[in-house]
Amino acid sequence: MIHFDSDYMEGAHPRIMERLCETNLTQNSGYGTDPYTENAKKLIRSLLGNDSADIHFLVGGTQTNATVIGAVLHGADAVIAADTAHINVHEAGAIEATGHKVITLPGRDGKLDAGDIETYMQAFRGDENWIHMSNPALVYISFPTEYGTLYSLKELEAIGDVCRRYDLKLYMDGARLGYGLVAEGNDVSLADIVRICDAFYIGGTKIGTLLGEAVVLRNSKLIPHFFSYVKRIGAMLAKGRLLGIQFETLFTDNLYFEISRHGVEMAMKLKEVFLSKGYKPAVDSPTNQQFFILPNRVIDHLQQYATFELWGARGETSSVVRFVTSWATKAEDISALAAVLPAMPA
Amino acid sequence: MIHFDSDYMEGAHPRIMERLCETNLTQNSGYGTDPYTENAKKLIRSLLGNDSADIHFLVGGTQTNATVIGAVLHGADAVIAADTAHINVHEAGAIEATGHKVITLPGRDGKLDAGDIETYMQAFRGDENWIHMSNPALVYISFPTEYGTLYSLKELEAIGDVCRRYDLKLYMDGARLGYGLVAEGNDVSLADIVRICDAFYIGGTKIGTLLGEAVVLRNSKLIPHFFSYVKRIGAMLAKGRLLGIQFETLFTDNLYFEISRHGVEMAMKLKEVFLSKGYKPAVDSPTNQQFFILPNRVIDHLQQYATFELWGARGETSSVVRFVTSWATKAEDISALAAVLPAMPA
Amino acid sequence: MIHFDSDYMEGAHPRIMERLCETNLTQNSGYGTDPYTENAKKLIRSLLGNDSADIHFLVGGTQTNATVIGAVLHGADAVIAADTAHINVHEAGAIEATGHKVITLPGRDGKLDAGDIETYMQAFRGDENWIHMSNPALVYISFPTEYGTLYSLKELEAIGDVCRRYDLKLYMDGARLGYGLVAEGNDVSLADIVRICDAFYIGGTKIGTLLGEAVVLRNSKLIPHFFSYVKRIGAMLAKGRLLGIQFETLFTDNLYFEISRHGVEMAMKLKEVFLSKGYKPAVDSPTNQQFFILPNRVIDHLQQYATFELWGARGETSSVVRFVTSWATKAEDISALAAVLPAMPA
Amino acid sequence: MIHFDSDYMEGAHPRIMERLCETNLTQNSGYGTDPYTENAKKLIRSLLGNDSADIHFLVGGTQTNATVIGAVLHGADAVIAADTAHINVHEAGAIEATGHKVITLPGRDGKLDAGDIETYMQAFRGDENWIHMSNPALVYISFPTEYGTLYSLKELEAIGDVCRRYDLKLYMDGARLGYGLVAEGNDVSLADIVRICDAFYIGGTKIGTLLGEAVVLRNSKLIPHFFSYVKRIGAMLAKGRLLGIQFETLFTDNLYFEISRHGVEMAMKLKEVFLSKGYKPAVDSPTNQQFFILPNRVIDHLQQYATFELWGARGETSSVVRFVTSWATKAEDISALAAVLPAMPA
Repeated sequence: MIHFDSDYMEGAHPRIMERLCETNLTQNSGYGTDPYTENAKKLIRSLLGNDSADIHFLVGGTQTNATVIGAVLHGADAVIAADTAHINVHEAGAIEATGHKVITLPGRDGKLDAGDIETYMQAFRGDENWIHMSNPALVYISFPTEYGTLYSLKELEAIGDVCRRYDLKLYMDGARLGYGLVAEGNDVSLADIVRICDAFYIGGTKIGTLLGEAVVLRNSKLIPHFFSYVKRIGAMLAKGRLLGIQFETLFTDNLYFEISRHGVEMAMKLKEVFLSKGYKPAVDSPTNQQFFILPNRVIDHLQQYATFELWGARGETSSVVRFVTSWATKAEDISALAAVLPAMPA
Repeated sequence: MIHFDSDYMEGAHPRIMERLCETNLTQNSGYGTDPYTENAKKLIRSLLGNDSADIHFLVGGTQTNATVIGAVLHGADAVIAADTAHINVHEAGAIEATGHKVITLPGRDGKLDAGDIETYMQAFRGDENWIHMSNPALVYISFPTEYGTLYSLKELEAIGDVCRRYDLKLYMDGARLGYGLVAEGNDVSLADIVRICDAFYIGGTKIGTLLGEAVVLRNSKLIPHFFSYVKRIGAMLAKGRLLGIQFETLFTDNLYFEISRHGVEMAMKLKEVFLSKGYKPAVDSPTNQQFFILPNRVIDHLQQYATFELWGARGETSSVVRFVTSWATKAEDISALAAVLPAMPA
Repeated sequence: MIHFDSDYMEGAHPRIMERLCETNLTQNSGYGTDPYTENAKKLIRSLLGNDSADIHFLVGGTQTNATVIGAVLHGADAVIAADTAHINVHEAGAIEATGHKVITLPGRDGKLDAGDIETYMQAFRGDENWIHMSNPALVYISFPTEYGTLYSLKELEAIGDVCRRYDLKLYMDGARLGYGLVAEGNDVSLADIVRICDAFYIGGTKIGTLLGEAVVLRNSKLIPHFFSYVKRIGAMLAKGRLLGIQFETLFTDNLYFEISRHGVEMAMKLKEVFLSKGYKPAVDSPTNQQFFILPNRVIDHLQQYATFELWGARGETSSVVRFVTSWATKAEDISALAAVLPAMPA
Repeated sequence: MIHFDSDYMEGAHPRIMERLCETNLTQNSGYGTDPYTENAKKLIRSLLGNDSADIHFLVGGTQTNATVIGAVLHGADAVIAADTAHINVHEAGAIEATGHKVITLPGRDGKLDAGDIETYMQAFRGDENWIHMSNPALVYISFPTEYGTLYSLKELEAIGDVCRRYDLKLYMDGARLGYGLVAEGNDVSLADIVRICDAFYIGGTKIGTLLGEAVVLRNSKLIPHFFSYVKRIGAMLAKGRLLGIQFETLFTDNLYFEISRHGVEMAMKLKEVFLSKGYKPAVDSPTNQQFFILPNRVIDHLQQYATFELWGARGETSSVVRFVTSWATKAEDISALAAVLPAMPA
């Protein structure tokens, strides 16, 4: 059986496991006050070229989104997101649990459109009843999106621009950031993200760590006393070193980008397999998540040999499926898949 | 200047004010333990033909919705509502403030469709990722809707049926319930509502009281210790008698229905004025809220003589406006409006 | 039967009822945008001698405390209060429902002591583990306290001083503010309160209105977009005029102070009755709430003629009782009580 | 420098690290649906002798407490705890962030007293104003307590008894459970805990894992849909195997108790060192946390050679310090400490 369910099916990248074992017996104070954590922050600040970036390590993606978004919003403030956004669909209401609404705009292959945001804000400001409405204060985007797609630099600039004009903060969910940065055709750099977004996170869980996400705030004024939100939601690890060591390793010798490149390379091979056999992508993704429309009987056949996710509910005759690659995907896995995938039935 | 902005522009119906003055110096214990409140509950239970109905008086509509919905939902539970629902649009995120998501389905003239609910539930249950999604546990409908429209008995039964089959509770926002019950063509009775809904409220603020809404729970098991939610959200009035006296008066000698009938009668006259002059309704409402599409220059003209609400943002050449009637609207107000409303420009 | 249970046993002061009836048919826009509300704010600002005070009318005390405190606190912030404070004991966890801890210090006859606050803050700042602790950000005091007692100006200045030195905001619950301001021996003026506190409220419910509390924020920067918190917690009345008209009346011709003086005058007579018969006060209160320690058999006897509150649970042989007076208490009520109160048994 | 700051200064016990490395490349589905997790649950159920126990793995202690307590409580429900309880002092208001009050009773060396709970409940039930008070619904105890102390079986039975009589659930924080179970003089068994408590957790972080706590609910009816609370607070790990593998290892070949025994053995040696040099314990702890009262100049001296925690703020002449041992503490560490600790100055 070959597995393409997700990019979190194994433990950590071997170099990370090695480093965890090497350092296992050193003694450090807790809650992220250890030197590994300090060094990991330095490495990230240096990569970002931003000395005043305020960096925090959290455990998982839903937790990170809820902590950051819940801390930025006050009173009747709300966050704008695509209807397909992870925070809207797959976080069991974690944002609402912080007391704030997710205002949805139609996703376009998972992406928000700057024009749609502007139209919404104009209608909001022109509405006599705005005082009774949730107040849009933040925009949430993901890069890559939940559908593996990417914003072009032009699109991202346009969103940043509309945010500034309407006094909205901009937050990017980077659960799979690396896969986006190294994708073919991508023209958005880390420096662009730092410049345009008020906050974002660099995902670890899906790019080689056991767990962990690195939050980057433009500066510490964005969320004063951020640690107090982290502690209060139960996100602060006693053994904070576990996050520090992993992110230190990830940003040493370019491991983060090496992992990302391998994942995307495997995904492109996998995509080629599907395309060459006549299947249509549900969306054209240049990153490590691939979505295809498969006849249900092809799905039934494939499930004898491979695991992957049905995306949404099963359709009547065909359904959307998701195949995901990672640092652990091997070229043989793709060949094995190719060997069992029939050509698209006529 | 004639006023059609809302049905809460005056104080209370004169009979209510009289009764408040009459009883002003009697002394009662606080927090709803007074005999007026007890009697008001009896009158409502008798009207509903349900001796085990659990009745509570709250202050306002947003507060009522947040208290009931917040108490029914637990954990990752969410409430399903039309995208145009008051709880989704005009309550500043009060439901989310209780920690729960509002899942929206497309409103059809303000109404939810039983088939849409069923489709959503089927997709939810067929989704491998349902565990990461908000759990639909309650359906919110309004009667009349925010657009003045009504569910037919058949439509309401269909919603009740889908709720039972998918283990969803059903809650009806009756901020303007009376206007719906007495509307021409309405075939839904209070007894039907009691039978089909798990909870609903009978609105007072918009039907003649100074303030106050009467929550009806099918029985006290639906929300154990309801008072504790009421107190905790700050909805419990020290002078609870203020609610008891008003609802007692409202349900004595049919005042509630008398007020409702007058409001609807005035609305029908007003509708006739617009239709006869060639204007199109934005939605066909048989109740006390009327929505019309007016050219912007007609709006500008009318605003010299009358006040009313622009519904949403102003359009480029024409906009939707809302005119509302109440117990206090006089036939002369309608005539005065007719006198200043020009015919629809060609 | 004579009633001393509380100061909210009747409707409103007759002048308020008259004014509500007089204005009942005038038409106004909703949600506090009416001219009565505007004028009430002006009258209060003028009384306070502070043109930039930001004033809002809410419905009840628990709601007011939860709205203001919940809006001032962020993240792991907490409010310091006496253990006997209304927010700690009698609001069913409304503050915690906004997500924040009430840190308690021992009440001294209901009062916080500036020295106790300082000691707490020193320990907090000296604690290596402060990062894991709730962050004290606000101090809550009540004037009069829940035991009817008052801070002297010196005591209040000392609290204000410790708050400034430790970067704590200061909020005063003035549910019965008037009774304190007019009490014999009181040396705290409204101007002092405005100068020392960041926020407070002037209670209406217990001083003559049907309902309503007037929140005073030093300026609108303390809580940006306060209305959004008000709306979101369901505290915004559609007929906002109901609050405006009542507070306008209360601050016209000194009605607020007239009511307060009458209530205190009656309380002093009542106190004299108890003292003269040999009973001991549980606490020495100069305001309209009086607490006495009564043998249980005296309580049983009295309950045939009068209603009043048992304060806390019944003791083995004697218990603490609360007697409350108001604008509606008559001299005859006190005489009637005197007639049935036996001398303290030996 | 020797370190006694805490029991979370290293990574994981070597056997756990080995097992994580061994299994690193096996592929599993996410979110705790892997076979390691399934097996870990089986091992724990077998150890507890309770087949219907509902077991969940979470990340950290504060998160675990907030998730369980927040899920058990509804409306105005509150949790009773000792004033020294972790949830009251060192969780930055995480319980209050779920909307519920922590009601505190005086801790006796960190322990709640059954009699104090009964007294509180009697007063609560006898209070006419109970409807305005937070409703005690759950009791929180820790075993060992935050001061290293233990409940005797008799004390625990008494608490269980008062809980049953007053309809309170009982929850035990077992962050350091193992150290308590193996302590000399302890007469409480796991079977007793299962029998008496409705819920508890078996801590991993402080007993050898990188992170992780195992929640045990008496049965799945206690908190229906527990996973939805876990997901919503962001506690669900994508790589749930990380928890499964660690707890599987911990409960294979008695590792959990082996670690616990070593920690306690080292603590007893350390205690002997202090006692033999004439220092007084702040509290008499039989577990791996030791609290001593040291003159400040002894503290200053020791800090040249060892790290440990000041417990609370520094006193004027002497202060309370905490020394903690773990699986990683070596006998040499204790000898080294003995070598630098002067005798108690006269």
